[in-house]
Amino acid sequence: MSYYSPSIEKLIESFEKLPSIGNKTAARLAFYILNASEEETNEFIESIQNAKKNLKYCSKCYNITDTDPCPICSNKARDQSVICVVEDVRDVVAMERTHEFKGLYHVLHGSISPMNGIGPDDLKIKELLSRLMGGTVKEVILATNPRVEGEATAMYLSKLIKPLGVKVTRIAHGIPVGGDLEYTDEVTLSRALEGRVQL
Amino acid sequence: MSYYSPSIEKLIESFEKLPSIGNKTAARLAFYILNASEEETNEFIESIQNAKKNLKYCSKCYNITDTDPCPICSNKARDQSVICVVEDVRDVVAMERTHEFKGLYHVLHGSISPMNGIGPDDLKIKELLSRLMGGTVKEVILATNPRVEGEATAMYLSKLIKPLGVKVTRIAHGIPVGGDLEYTDEVTLSRALEGRVQL
Repeated sequence: MSYYSPSIEKLIESFEKLPSIGNKTAARLAFYILNASEEETNEFIESIQNAKKNLKYCSKCYNITDTDPCPICSNKARDQSVICVVEDVRDVVAMERTHEFKGLYHVLHGSISPMNGIGPDDLKIKELLSRLMGGTVKEVILATNPRVEGEATAMYLSKLIKPLGVKVTRIAHGIPVGGDLEYTDEVTLSRALEGRVQL
Repeated sequence: MSYYSPSIEKLIESFEKLPSIGNKTAARLAFYILNASEEETNEFIESIQNAKKNLKYCSKCYNITDTDPCPICSNKARDQSVICVVEDVRDVVAMERTHEFKGLYHVLHGSISPMNGIGPDDLKIKELLSRLMGGTVKEVILATNPRVEGEATAMYLSKLIKPLGVKVTRIAHGIPVGGDLEYTDEVTLSRALEGRVQL
């Protein structure tokens, strides 16, 4: 049973749909929005609308970006011969924070997970292979998450890529197994990058 | 330094402004919105816009509502002779959940707090007193939070209201002192309501 008036109830429900937001937090956020000024609310709404409107995937690395190709792909100063393969857009940011990697990225948008019905065709694997065809790329660093799905994806990719004559490396297990690339501190991630081994 | 593209960065910042949302959660929420369908996003935005547009304060009790007077004030079945005074709109919901109280409410929108520069004139106290003038109200239950500010507000109100010949009661200290009315479980709040004492 609901004790709030319909419009607040609807707003609270909207916030509850967001990940990691429970009922109490949703109510707190809803009341914050209600008490916010017209200007603040419009700014909030515009930031959502602009993000939805402007953002697209980079046609080369599939990172999310305002411009295509993305600033990393179009930066000539970056090493075009190394591609770091990650599962998620946020993992690119995690890698960038180490300041250790100067190459390019490729975002898979997930990992192979038969349990969740995600196969190789659901990921940007074909797109990765076509980037390797030109002969510019000398090394592919597999930086998928050190979990069952990420390891499986890394193994799968290494078997596909090695026959192309491209060096395939895997970031070292400096990252705690079972963890998330996104939440790893910069130092651990730097160690993992340094200690990569050829597959 | 920012590693995300400007539109995401802006969206993450927008979410970070919300209470109890840190940087990591803001990023998670932003990416949820980016991956949500057009329809879901529009629904989210509309719920904010509708809430901001439709909601107003009830001209009698100052609860937040879609209709004026609010459903509680316009419900003839409720006891018009008892007014429960609370600090916040969410406290009305907390009281309603007990199913013990059948009277009306009055939302003060805060408590007297000289530390934060909030005096009696910043609260809906004049409006409460004018509701007591008609002679219909026989009892005022003070259900402000059991904290320094709430207690001070209760004392202040009791001194104002008693000369008007209206019975003034305070909810009992069944609620843990230092706690929040909003987060109290229904049973404790029911006990507090039953054990109220005349001031």
